[in-house]
Amino acid sequence: MLENKERTELKTLGEFGLIKHLTEHVEIYNPSSVKGIGDDAAVIKYGNEKHTLVTTDMLVEGVHFDLTYVPLKHLGYKAITVNLSDICAMNGTPKQVTVSYAASSRFSVEALEELYAGMLFACKKYNVDLIGGDTTSSTSGLIISVTAIGEADKDKVVYRNGAKEKDLLCVSGDLGGAYMGLQVLEREKFVFKDNPNLQPDLVGNDYILERQLKPEARLDIVELLQKLGVTPTSMIDVSDGLASEIIHICEQSGVGCELYEDKIPLDPQTFDRAREFSLDPTVCALSGGEDYELLFTIPMADYEKIKNVPDFTVIGHMTAKSSGINLIAKAGTSHPITAQGWNAFQ
Amino acid sequence: MLENKERTELKTLGEFGLIKHLTEHVEIYNPSSVKGIGDDAAVIKYGNEKHTLVTTDMLVEGVHFDLTYVPLKHLGYKAITVNLSDICAMNGTPKQVTVSYAASSRFSVEALEELYAGMLFACKKYNVDLIGGDTTSSTSGLIISVTAIGEADKDKVVYRNGAKEKDLLCVSGDLGGAYMGLQVLEREKFVFKDNPNLQPDLVGNDYILERQLKPEARLDIVELLQKLGVTPTSMIDVSDGLASEIIHICEQSGVGCELYEDKIPLDPQTFDRAREFSLDPTVCALSGGEDYELLFTIPMADYEKIKNVPDFTVIGHMTAKSSGINLIAKAGTSHPITAQGWNAFQ
Repeated sequence: MLENKERTELKTLGEFGLIKHLTEHVEIYNPSSVKGIGDDAAVIKYGNEKHTLVTTDMLVEGVHFDLTYVPLKHLGYKAITVNLSDICAMNGTPKQVTVSYAASSRFSVEALEELYAGMLFACKKYNVDLIGGDTTSSTSGLIISVTAIGEADKDKVVYRNGAKEKDLLCVSGDLGGAYMGLQVLEREKFVFKDNPNLQPDLVGNDYILERQLKPEARLDIVELLQKLGVTPTSMIDVSDGLASEIIHICEQSGVGCELYEDKIPLDPQTFDRAREFSLDPTVCALSGGEDYELLFTIPMADYEKIKNVPDFTVIGHMTAKSSGINLIAKAGTSHPITAQGWNAFQ
Repeated sequence: MLENKERTELKTLGEFGLIKHLTEHVEIYNPSSVKGIGDDAAVIKYGNEKHTLVTTDMLVEGVHFDLTYVPLKHLGYKAITVNLSDICAMNGTPKQVTVSYAASSRFSVEALEELYAGMLFACKKYNVDLIGGDTTSSTSGLIISVTAIGEADKDKVVYRNGAKEKDLLCVSGDLGGAYMGLQVLEREKFVFKDNPNLQPDLVGNDYILERQLKPEARLDIVELLQKLGVTPTSMIDVSDGLASEIIHICEQSGVGCELYEDKIPLDPQTFDRAREFSLDPTVCALSGGEDYELLFTIPMADYEKIKNVPDFTVIGHMTAKSSGINLIAKAGTSHPITAQGWNAFQ
């Protein structure tokens, strides 16, 4: 991606020079960003009726991403959107982000420019201000830490712990695609290692590759819920896998759940590729993670408001805690759901 | 430090288990912390007349700290206070922090407990809430990223760019100590490598060692300025060295400066140890960094209000931009100040 570009070593600019260089295209979109980059701290002004939302995520090379097949621009984009997704999962609107990163001398100025370009692209798309951060070196690899700040009307903030018995369990978009995109990328990496002359075979995988490499935060869903007059009783974003997120909601809300396997929304590409890899598509959705869709519960009374929204799927309903958290398989049998999603220390 | 303790591998707890384990002693001190750890994002409520302040810092093993001589509890404490210091440098009061870290399998649960204990100790001391974060693995070493959030009255926020010609340049506490503490630690590490049977000789260095290992954020200075009715025209914390910080203020304010060498406050221990190491104590103050004192400018009219405060030293005054940024040496000669402080990429 960076071939044929001039290479400038980080040390030629130095820390302050690098910050200045990288931040010169930062734009401020919100009047609430009183002071952004360039001081000890950023200054934000909020109104009266709002809650401030703050979330942070760290991405580590070799753990969360593999630069053999992840372009830095995509990585920058994803580093921002996964944080914005957490703000959306509170039913909030992201407004600002801070970005810190540590990079080893393996990275050139141009490489960090790519990373930054992806970040700023995401900021522009979501109307979010990059208001500060930290830039430093690492002894090996690249580490990115993003903090996102957002706001929501005080009475519209949605937690994980508000789901009630009989509430409907809904999800936006489709699931398992990001995981299948990763499988394709890993396969091609393996093929490439074996024979560097082979070109990667990515044809027909555009959707799942984009799900993996360039995930979006579902701010549109937050806005749609607002327009529909629906405030979910609980909400979470699908970062670790559907199973793990359902368990979070159930445990924190003190309820059980019945999830219907045949309702889980899968894109045909996800389904086909899973079959090709001899994987169960349902397991990909349950344990794959990184889809960044919104999983939420609504009272049955709100069903009429959402039933015709193509982007929403009702995938189950909440039950008494004593009933447990179960998957109702296509055959009608019931199976306890256990979390087998992403775990950084496994 | 962790000898004779049972060792629990991170993987035995897993990510969620580890978070739960580490956060069980987190206390919430501020009513504004509506929702802390345990959801996708933290929720903070601010009043009407306030600005929200946000700052973030990343600490990387092998770059910012050396675990051969930095106890993890001290590291945790410092990771928090250096961020709070940035909030103080805006004339603000820190309220919340988020903490992310990536640790390799070299670290045990007990090691991270120590780190966390130091963080919580700092939070308690400064009445700050740890409201969220991220915990993940790294391929090598420990990386910590902290974001601090604070508030200040809208009309009391102090930036780097407000210094005016003829303003007095003041600093709290004394300078160069943290740097000399580091020199002592590095010397003893070197001695130890040479002969592991020798005990480290740290006697008589307690002050400078504490300056290096357990720096404080000068929130007391922010409160004192408030009590004295003084709002600085500009302010910055001394993290990279006095020279670097003065240059920041001058460049952003569009002024020059005369700094008087004989006014730079030095602790006797700093002075003596510098001499012992054949270092110029003034250079230690100018380029050493990590003192986390507050450097600020005030109008001459406010001099009466601060002149009897033992913790403040007037070290110079601001001049026209065209006069440059100069050190007036003890001999009366004038020398342009250049930044030779901390630079992560050097």
